[in-house]
Amino acid sequence: MKHLRQELWFNTPHRRDYLNITSQVEALVRQSGVANGLCLVNAMHITASVYINDDEHGLLEDYDEWLEKLAPHAPTSQYRHNRTGEDNADAHMKRQIMGREVVVAITDGKLDLGPWEQIFYGEFDGRRKKRVLVKIIGE
Amino acid sequence: MKHLRQELWFNTPHRRDYLNITSQVEALVRQSGVANGLCLVNAMHITASVYINDDEHGLLEDYDEWLEKLAPHAPTSQYRHNRTGEDNADAHMKRQIMGREVVVAITDGKLDLGPWEQIFYGEFDGRRKKRVLVKIIGE
Amino acid sequence: MKHLRQELWFNTPHRRDYLNITSQVEALVRQSGVANGLCLVNAMHITASVYINDDEHGLLEDYDEWLEKLAPHAPTSQYRHNRTGEDNADAHMKRQIMGREVVVAITDGKLDLGPWEQIFYGEFDGRRKKRVLVKIIGE
Repeated sequence: MKHLRQELWFNTPHRRDYLNITSQVEALVRQSGVANGLCLVNAMHITASVYINDDEHGLLEDYDEWLEKLAPHAPTSQYRHNRTGEDNADAHMKRQIMGREVVVAITDGKLDLGPWEQIFYGEFDGRRKKRVLVKIIGE
Repeated sequence: MKHLRQELWFNTPHRRDYLNITSQVEALVRQSGVANGLCLVNAMHITASVYINDDEHGLLEDYDEWLEKLAPHAPTSQYRHNRTGEDNADAHMKRQIMGREVVVAITDGKLDLGPWEQIFYGEFDGRRKKRVLVKIIGE
Repeated sequence: MKHLRQELWFNTPHRRDYLNITSQVEALVRQSGVANGLCLVNAMHITASVYINDDEHGLLEDYDEWLEKLAPHAPTSQYRHNRTGEDNADAHMKRQIMGREVVVAITDGKLDLGPWEQIFYGEFDGRRKKRVLVKIIGE
């Protein structure tokens, strides 16, 4: 069994950002030499997501507005978690909607994705260094 | 390490449908010859889900109504994504709530599911051919 | 390839509870002897979740309140599923928001978690015996 572990680091300019990281993950799959296996990609922070969906600008704005509706940032005093001195309780909720991780099949040495599937890093409490874990196993 | 890759194709009659695909996945596990491993089942399209829950008619209707409340289809003009000519922005959101994929343990050559766990294909923008990926690895 | 399968059983005192199970999963990883691989942790019941987030008391209360807002328990008559004699339709929804499973990388014989990542069992219809599956594969 072959395996590879790599961290991807991000420092986004805004509180919330949506970054397409597909090509970075694809490069690690090539580097791993795995022809058939599984590729786990997960946020290592609990106020961010890794998810798969469309790389379409309007949709990313729709997601952002929708998540704000389901778990609004303000007023920050509505969340008990923010009494700890944080202001990111909403980010812990948005991340649960969008998910922590994706597991992608590797077939013939490539990410086995559908035609529109793109891997995204969803940041909900950015403007600081945070990271994603890529773990690949297979043969 | 053994591995198997198979696509399952669907063309649902309605915009939204919920199909129990457990027996199709179970058949692929048998075919793989894997006794212990992992089985990834994921939608290859970004307006559909694979999730695990109950095969109970009332619950499926409850899910449908609940998802419409959290991410309504109409008016379609409320979503920027639909300015691209699509009318399926809501489907991209419903899919995030229900999830893209499940990973199921394989033990003694079978899907290692709890008593009520059933694997579902959740379609949120149907009436066209779409597919699910099954990838099995193990020994 | 090494593999390990273990069930963890819970009987929570309230309808909804949030239990940190990280150390129990970590112990199974040690027991498996796997240095590099994947660890799947999933609820075997469809009214409970396994998810990763913060072990902070205020946040757990925030989650509970938020989930009640997105999928209220009462009135139980609002859900078709409850006509079967159940009163747990809301639990089937809360579980979809929080997720069924997590897949965690194993590196150097340990769960490869970020600094604040903790594995939780989220119970939404408790006060009875229910279980979680841990499946570990790797080398």
